[in-house]
Amino acid sequence: MRRETLEDNLTQLRAMLDETGPLVASAFRDASEALLWDRPRLAEQVVSRDPVIDGHRDAIELLAVETMNIHQPMVTPLRSVITALRCAQQLERMGDLARHIAATVVRNGDRVVLAEQARPLFRDYGARVAAMGDKAVEVLRTHNVVLAAELRDDDDVVDALHRQVFELMFGPDWTAGVPAAVDAALLARFHERYADHCVHLADHVVYAVTGGTVDELPAL
Amino acid sequence: MRRETLEDNLTQLRAMLDETGPLVASAFRDASEALLWDRPRLAEQVVSRDPVIDGHRDAIELLAVETMNIHQPMVTPLRSVITALRCAQQLERMGDLARHIAATVVRNGDRVVLAEQARPLFRDYGARVAAMGDKAVEVLRTHNVVLAAELRDDDDVVDALHRQVFELMFGPDWTAGVPAAVDAALLARFHERYADHCVHLADHVVYAVTGGTVDELPAL
Repeated sequence: MRRETLEDNLTQLRAMLDETGPLVASAFRDASEALLWDRPRLAEQVVSRDPVIDGHRDAIELLAVETMNIHQPMVTPLRSVITALRCAQQLERMGDLARHIAATVVRNGDRVVLAEQARPLFRDYGARVAAMGDKAVEVLRTHNVVLAAELRDDDDVVDALHRQVFELMFGPDWTAGVPAAVDAALLARFHERYADHCVHLADHVVYAVTGGTVDELPAL
Repeated sequence: MRRETLEDNLTQLRAMLDETGPLVASAFRDASEALLWDRPRLAEQVVSRDPVIDGHRDAIELLAVETMNIHQPMVTPLRSVITALRCAQQLERMGDLARHIAATVVRNGDRVVLAEQARPLFRDYGARVAAMGDKAVEVLRTHNVVLAAELRDDDDVVDALHRQVFELMFGPDWTAGVPAAVDAALLARFHERYADHCVHLADHVVYAVTGGTVDELPAL
């Protein structure tokens, strides 16, 4: 049995991240689907699958630490290892946010979670945030820095939708009452945080590729 | 100039964590104070000090990575380094939650954030969560596993308070309206998450000290 080289470990780290990314992106899609179409069973699945994502994070962390410990990589590969660590952390938090959305649906059982008035907004909100998740996972897989830069603009759109949810709830037309408003506020926050983490995830990748930030990239 | 030993680095990591812990605990105390006594200036300070906590986390992460890379520590010291990494991460998230509370106060400017009806509950809630923060920081500093176990019970009390906030808002006596309920729900969540992270922080320390979990400790 040959000893694993630094190159082997770096390849394995990337493979593990590539495997984790889509799990997280699907968790969000399913959570959003469960919310929009009142599917508590689907929500339960998201909740019960979250420990798998946590397990991936732990495995990546362990391998990253072993890699640093055994191979003492120099600057560039070390940056890749640190990036893997940070990306695993971001993915785990994104998974948690998908779980929070799903858990809100589960907790409400057969009661409808999302007020009728809030549905059109959340359909748009959920679709855009899910697309950001897919894009962030794509950045992770392909190291495409152009897509990474796009995520900044996507996030501005999402922030605007976030404000619209609050304007709706605080406006005179909100008739769904306090509990529905509280659920919508928490759900909106989970969406917004997930989108933020998509941006952070892509930022870590850009740092690994260029050693700089998205803002330092030359204009396209 | 002598080269730093593994022992030097481990000592330095602990010192850095010991310095970060109280910053985080004070951030929460100040955020809670700002919320309960309508002090937007104090809230602004919490928000503006958060990057200092983030900077501590970055510095700890860097030193932990360097330590692993240069010294290739064996199992026990390696566990300490990994624990330092994880604790730094927890502290950073706790700092963020204090910042979220403070930012809610800042965003409301001179408008009172917390509905009069919710104040008694939040006074209790804030005090208990702040005490958990102090205790978690104490666990970090002293490696006292008995205190770590106490945090589990503290967290149960806090979870009960969390439910009370929602019962109040969803009950017939809530007259403060939707915006106040939404703010209270988000604030309650930030309190609850901070308390969770106190428990996680202590868990990491227990793992470093015993290699096991709090649940595996012999009964006292």
